[in-house]
Amino acid sequence: MKDDKLQTLRHSASHVLAQAVLLIYPDAKLAIGPAIDEGFYYDFDLGDKTFSEDDLAKIEELMHQIIKSNQKYERYEVASEKALDYIKGKNQPYKLELAEDLIKEGEKTLSFYRMLDGKGEKKFVDLCAGPHIGLTKEIGAIKLLRLAGAYWKGSEKNKMLQRIYGTAFEKESELKAYLDLLEEAKKRDHRIIGADQQLFFFDEIVGKGLPLWLPNGTIIRNEVEKLACEMEEADGYVRVVTPHLAKQELYLKSGHLPYYKDSMYPGMNLDDGIYYLKAMNCPHHHQIYNHNLHSYRELPIRIAEYGTVYRNELSGTLAGLLRVRSIAQNDAHIYCTKEQIKDEFKKVMKLMLDEFKIFGLNDYSFRLSRWDANHVEKYINEPENWEYSEQMIREVLDEMKVDYIEATDEAAFYGPKVDVQIKTVVGREETMSTVQLDFAAKGKFELTYTDENGKKNNEVFVIHRAPLSSHERFMAILIEHYAGLWPVWLAPVQAMIAPVGQDFNDAAKNFAKDLVASGIRVWVDDAAETVGNKIRKAEKQKIPYMIVVGQKEADGQDWQIRVRGQKENVSLSKNDFIDKVVSEIKARI
Amino acid sequence: MKDDKLQTLRHSASHVLAQAVLLIYPDAKLAIGPAIDEGFYYDFDLGDKTFSEDDLAKIEELMHQIIKSNQKYERYEVASEKALDYIKGKNQPYKLELAEDLIKEGEKTLSFYRMLDGKGEKKFVDLCAGPHIGLTKEIGAIKLLRLAGAYWKGSEKNKMLQRIYGTAFEKESELKAYLDLLEEAKKRDHRIIGADQQLFFFDEIVGKGLPLWLPNGTIIRNEVEKLACEMEEADGYVRVVTPHLAKQELYLKSGHLPYYKDSMYPGMNLDDGIYYLKAMNCPHHHQIYNHNLHSYRELPIRIAEYGTVYRNELSGTLAGLLRVRSIAQNDAHIYCTKEQIKDEFKKVMKLMLDEFKIFGLNDYSFRLSRWDANHVEKYINEPENWEYSEQMIREVLDEMKVDYIEATDEAAFYGPKVDVQIKTVVGREETMSTVQLDFAAKGKFELTYTDENGKKNNEVFVIHRAPLSSHERFMAILIEHYAGLWPVWLAPVQAMIAPVGQDFNDAAKNFAKDLVASGIRVWVDDAAETVGNKIRKAEKQKIPYMIVVGQKEADGQDWQIRVRGQKENVSLSKNDFIDKVVSEIKARI
Repeated sequence: MKDDKLQTLRHSASHVLAQAVLLIYPDAKLAIGPAIDEGFYYDFDLGDKTFSEDDLAKIEELMHQIIKSNQKYERYEVASEKALDYIKGKNQPYKLELAEDLIKEGEKTLSFYRMLDGKGEKKFVDLCAGPHIGLTKEIGAIKLLRLAGAYWKGSEKNKMLQRIYGTAFEKESELKAYLDLLEEAKKRDHRIIGADQQLFFFDEIVGKGLPLWLPNGTIIRNEVEKLACEMEEADGYVRVVTPHLAKQELYLKSGHLPYYKDSMYPGMNLDDGIYYLKAMNCPHHHQIYNHNLHSYRELPIRIAEYGTVYRNELSGTLAGLLRVRSIAQNDAHIYCTKEQIKDEFKKVMKLMLDEFKIFGLNDYSFRLSRWDANHVEKYINEPENWEYSEQMIREVLDEMKVDYIEATDEAAFYGPKVDVQIKTVVGREETMSTVQLDFAAKGKFELTYTDENGKKNNEVFVIHRAPLSSHERFMAILIEHYAGLWPVWLAPVQAMIAPVGQDFNDAAKNFAKDLVASGIRVWVDDAAETVGNKIRKAEKQKIPYMIVVGQKEADGQDWQIRVRGQKENVSLSKNDFIDKVVSEIKARI
Repeated sequence: MKDDKLQTLRHSASHVLAQAVLLIYPDAKLAIGPAIDEGFYYDFDLGDKTFSEDDLAKIEELMHQIIKSNQKYERYEVASEKALDYIKGKNQPYKLELAEDLIKEGEKTLSFYRMLDGKGEKKFVDLCAGPHIGLTKEIGAIKLLRLAGAYWKGSEKNKMLQRIYGTAFEKESELKAYLDLLEEAKKRDHRIIGADQQLFFFDEIVGKGLPLWLPNGTIIRNEVEKLACEMEEADGYVRVVTPHLAKQELYLKSGHLPYYKDSMYPGMNLDDGIYYLKAMNCPHHHQIYNHNLHSYRELPIRIAEYGTVYRNELSGTLAGLLRVRSIAQNDAHIYCTKEQIKDEFKKVMKLMLDEFKIFGLNDYSFRLSRWDANHVEKYINEPENWEYSEQMIREVLDEMKVDYIEATDEAAFYGPKVDVQIKTVVGREETMSTVQLDFAAKGKFELTYTDENGKKNNEVFVIHRAPLSSHERFMAILIEHYAGLWPVWLAPVQAMIAPVGQDFNDAAKNFAKDLVASGIRVWVDDAAETVGNKIRKAEKQKIPYMIVVGQKEADGQDWQIRVRGQKENVSLSKNDFIDKVVSEIKARI
């Protein structure tokens, strides 16, 4: 959380919440009430009672009154023993436990905040480190969001408490903007649109975290993959296909075993050894690099594959496409000399930005994670390579004129990296991709090339990159980004043709053939329904173009094309329409 | 083995072999000497001695002399006890064991074959059921092929014997044709060409039976997949992507567990159950079918995926791409009504033959495997469906005018199938694909549709089909079929451009850009070498077109194009050459 002021305001709002709850349930036991990214919460123990939605409305109303009454926040300190007595007197066991924890940690006095009304009357007291705002009127807008269960101190061994989530802002307009965004995010939820548009689903009997891609989702997925392949080919990448498995020995060599073992699926005993599902694609690609000897003239070698890796995530942590157990990565590894690092890094960054542009992803920021020369023990011991490569990457970022921050002591063990954060249309920050330089692989995998003097050179640098993330993650982002309004090139059905009646089914199907022959994805809705119905169905499916076929169209007259999201029809001949759509597909718009 | 006559001749040749061996090693102990597909063998125990290649030549020379001397084969029978005494006297322990086995099985007399020379002198005797030819001169041609080790009675618990393989024919010309084919097969070995052309490799540390596809192999593999996808799309298939894993519950439902468990990889324990690598794609596709309700108007639904399945083969049984542990199948499942079986089966057969034609696979035969009404216990108990669907398939085969045989009592439990055998260019028969009807799935997976009357109908028939087999198997067949001389559309590099010197590198690269922009795979060989060298390299790589770029070409004159396998160059302008290659790629030739 960046905004300390907003955080203080929200934490103060949580005290208002607790005060309001005590007005309705004087016996409520209070736990904790911190500020969080989306606002604040407070945890309560109501014994056998349960908060209802009606309670939430009542509590919120009381909170408004409290804020309006403009209470004052006041801090004071009490000696430890006296504080314990006070809390015991109030019969607040969770606060007591918190106070005891603080005393165990060595606190001699404990700080409290009280809230006083205009007459100086005490309305609420809480054990609290603060800080707080001065007056409740500073809270310009509040809203309670939802109820949830939460274990005391986050441990499933403790009692389940009732948590009330809320949010607060300085201004009513900010709250409204936030609630609009929440509403928008809900509408754009990739799980909801994914189900609506029949893109993918999860199936209990197939397993958790393993999406099954339906025909519509497969079309989009394949278009994304085709784009990536084309752009990578244009940039001189070669493609490979590697198995989804490898023997234990490979992951011992790469170091994934034993360090990464908990994230990997369990090993499988075959007659010749233990096999693991892929943890990463890089070891396979290194083996491909090492399958032949390479001359300096061949470098850089760029090996690409939509490779699938597997993560043994706990079933409870899985979330739609954003956290899955089988991940098809837009992966590639670039093997280059030290002199080529800058050019290759720049090419990767350029490719990534070109791809983002096609998808209209405009809101991104970069972060260069560097080593720390004061903590050399955390990093591969090649100071000269660290300094050199970080400088090269910095130059790339500067030359590309992108915004970036530098984070010292945040690099991976094996080299500096650039993370790309994108801000989604609903304001969420997502780590989209990472470009990672690696100078440990050359040692572990004995990566070499023959240099100009015919000598073996071990200075092979590897760039790991996945600009389009994984199919799973990227599809989740795209669904949210487009809210299901796919641009023509990605739309599972690009044009719907609606014959006005059964007599025109044949004409419609013949038109469809022409469109299909030009590579357009068409659906002829020949159901025995009204045209109005057909249009409504197509609109619900968010099909970009809808064409009604009746006598005039069958006679060869121009088509009156309904365009998704537009009120006015567009009049075009069949051939002009085909040209238009084909050019849109080609331009990927 | 179909040819009984040839089999008799070859078995007779094995007696000639044994006789020759005894002439050199009188103490050799004889085991067995049957005819096999490629000829015959005989197993010997030489004690400490080992056959050498020189021995083979000597033995073969002796065999020629024996054949020339025109010995006569003569059968006779001996009472069991007397026969045992005889064999004991000859000190032939393996024969003794065979004789004892026969007596244990109840034989009262044992049959022997003796070979007599012109003077009626006995040259060789063998315990043998026969039959044999009359005279050795009927063996028109023999050739010893190789040595191998073989356990007595095929059990690793027994002693390792020395096996001599040979072949025999009626005519010398037949032997020559066979040896030529062997030579050709060796040249076409997919493992050798795969390594030569850098198509794929196996890597000990990645694991056995798990090919890694190199860039060249990936290009071919992707072109094959693209063809399949295009043809399936034209035939109304939809594509899906399913995970490579499923929970145990899915395979219990499908019945793969426990019956097929030994062929599956071991299960993996995750926190929410046991997960298995895919045994088959069908259960996943059934779950996709069942994800929605279907109306009769939607059927047939054709769900396609190059899905990867996993087989836990023993490491010792793996053989190049022909037997692997990870198999990317050209899979699809068609869900149709009973009335649609014939049309859908025909469409599949037609698709398959169209695909074979593109690859020039012309030598194939079909086999319809039927149930047996006398063994109903082996089959799903739907007699009416068996009779009906077999009749439909028969009609399809008849209407398509293809050769086929019918095999009663050879169907799978769940429905009749058609196997397609192709005969490879080197004369080997390979089961290429199977089209399998399935009427058990509808019960197991409760596959239904809503019929014309709005009622749930469970009569959903499934067709399993994989015309192009798996990527692994089909690539092995294609490599052998083309002997590495890939047609233009499949060639990893379609055109090599050789600048005559460094001065023309830029011109060559500019030409290459134009070719690449038209979708042609080009390699500019800008090495500091002679043009002759570059041509030789390209010829070794079997690149279809080679273009030398010097001053004339740089000035815009026509190109003199070397065509793979042709002596005469072809003269074409750049644009005409591009048009030619593009049209060849499009026509897939």
